[in-house]
Amino acid sequence: MDTARVADLDEDALVALVAARLPAGRSTFLGPGDDAAVVVAGDGRFVVTTDVLVEDQHFRREWSSGADVGARAAMQNLADVAAMGASPTALVVALTVPPDLPVAFVTGLAEGLAAVCAPLGVGVVGGDLSAGPSVQVAVTAHGDLAGRAPVRRSGARPGDTVAHAGVAGWSAAGLALLVAGRRDDELVGAYLCPRAPLAAGPAAARAGASAMLDVSDGLVRDAQRIASASGVQIAFDSVAQAFADDLARLAGAAAVVGAQADDWVLGGGEDHGLLATFPGALAHGFRPVGHVVAGQGVTVAGQQPTVSGWDHFG
Amino acid sequence: MDTARVADLDEDALVALVAARLPAGRSTFLGPGDDAAVVVAGDGRFVVTTDVLVEDQHFRREWSSGADVGARAAMQNLADVAAMGASPTALVVALTVPPDLPVAFVTGLAEGLAAVCAPLGVGVVGGDLSAGPSVQVAVTAHGDLAGRAPVRRSGARPGDTVAHAGVAGWSAAGLALLVAGRRDDELVGAYLCPRAPLAAGPAAARAGASAMLDVSDGLVRDAQRIASASGVQIAFDSVAQAFADDLARLAGAAAVVGAQADDWVLGGGEDHGLLATFPGALAHGFRPVGHVVAGQGVTVAGQQPTVSGWDHFG
Repeated sequence: MDTARVADLDEDALVALVAARLPAGRSTFLGPGDDAAVVVAGDGRFVVTTDVLVEDQHFRREWSSGADVGARAAMQNLADVAAMGASPTALVVALTVPPDLPVAFVTGLAEGLAAVCAPLGVGVVGGDLSAGPSVQVAVTAHGDLAGRAPVRRSGARPGDTVAHAGVAGWSAAGLALLVAGRRDDELVGAYLCPRAPLAAGPAAARAGASAMLDVSDGLVRDAQRIASASGVQIAFDSVAQAFADDLARLAGAAAVVGAQADDWVLGGGEDHGLLATFPGALAHGFRPVGHVVAGQGVTVAGQQPTVSGWDHFG
Repeated sequence: MDTARVADLDEDALVALVAARLPAGRSTFLGPGDDAAVVVAGDGRFVVTTDVLVEDQHFRREWSSGADVGARAAMQNLADVAAMGASPTALVVALTVPPDLPVAFVTGLAEGLAAVCAPLGVGVVGGDLSAGPSVQVAVTAHGDLAGRAPVRRSGARPGDTVAHAGVAGWSAAGLALLVAGRRDDELVGAYLCPRAPLAAGPAAARAGASAMLDVSDGLVRDAQRIASASGVQIAFDSVAQAFADDLARLAGAAAVVGAQADDWVLGGGEDHGLLATFPGALAHGFRPVGHVVAGQGVTVAGQQPTVSGWDHFG
């Protein structure tokens, strides 16, 4: 089995291997096995988001195991659910695999999804499996708002505190280390399999956060999205002040690869931290990193930032 | 713009072109623009299913326009929702595109999604856009059961009538015509852009259907799934009797390409008709095609069928 390829199995057998590894979930009314699943939505509404991981675009198989890819696919989608202030309930997964892919990669991927979802009571309730030119994992995640209003990008107001939960720059640093041939660093793990501060999302909503999003494309670029949607300026404190912990953690890696840790903090994507604005006290898990002021755009220590994130097609 | 490629635009500009074409939907509480959408689930539960279309696996760009692919991606997912007895409410779409793809294919795809969804009041409430080696469209569809139990595959009982809604064999015939270089036939349209009998799904549930599924892999293969899940035998009447209308419609195409129309009816995939079993009167839109009997497997006119559908990896 260890050397088996996808093309060695028929579709039903491969689906069965995946299905056996997927968690049922606390909100699952009807799980896999029919044309569709049924998920409980006690709120009378559900939150939904979809994100895809594409081989050689978002990950490389020489670096990421199936379990890494599965965990990351789950985490980046659950982070989007959390960013609305919701608690995750269920995932579905559309997986495309090349015929020569080791079966162990596919079963590992299911185990990676389960490793993230099962402890949260999140079910993987359905999926689709197709052949294709490379590995692609399209996850759709759902969540429950428990009666609260969704936290949007458009609610930030001058005077709010800008706050951040999670880490900043770790994923970008981990990728840089991998490119440089280094694997023996916790930062590499943060790239392969980021850990989003999922509980901080509903906590922020309960604390009255006025705006929030998941930091997937870099702190400056994503802050710009809140600024644009809210018609305000996001004024970060100096990186040295606001992100001192991250800078300290990244300094060694920056020296190894000859990079600036500031650039990773401000421009690195895919850490899946949460950036939020609070009119009052911050929720547990958030640290203050700046203020909302009248105006537009993003400033860092009063200056225009020089890092602007990245573009998938650029 | 007609000759523009995806790589000529930045990601946000491409997303804006797509978003402008997507319908809002009657059940949309919060549409695109935040990290996730919010959809109304008045039932307190929601139905969810996901299916992907992969270029050169499920469609070819030389045959299918962007609008065809978008409409088909929506339709095959809405058919899965209908097969549970639910009415569709919302879609999300994860789209992967190669950098040299014409922008017009992407905007056409959005228009194809809208052409199917808008008349039904179904919103396309979110999405993801990534670069990749070929076009892939992963749709996740949601539906509402309006307080009814979901119609599963496992409820068929001996004595039930087996019934079918929609067309059988048309998609397979259309593909065969395309392969033979013919385009001037309604059957080609049925392959490029199948029309599933979506309203028949909730109608079947209201009429007390005991089992149901969407016929995506061929009538015999999908009937086998009901037979296995329910622990019964699905006994089709003779094809000439049960599917006389389809046979008549397919005869010309069968003669053109030298195929047997029976094989298309029994083995052709992706028509997205509904196969259901009814203890009592059939729902509107269904025709009787056989009976549920004690035993296992599938028979056609009392014989083992010789056509068994197809396997994505075979």
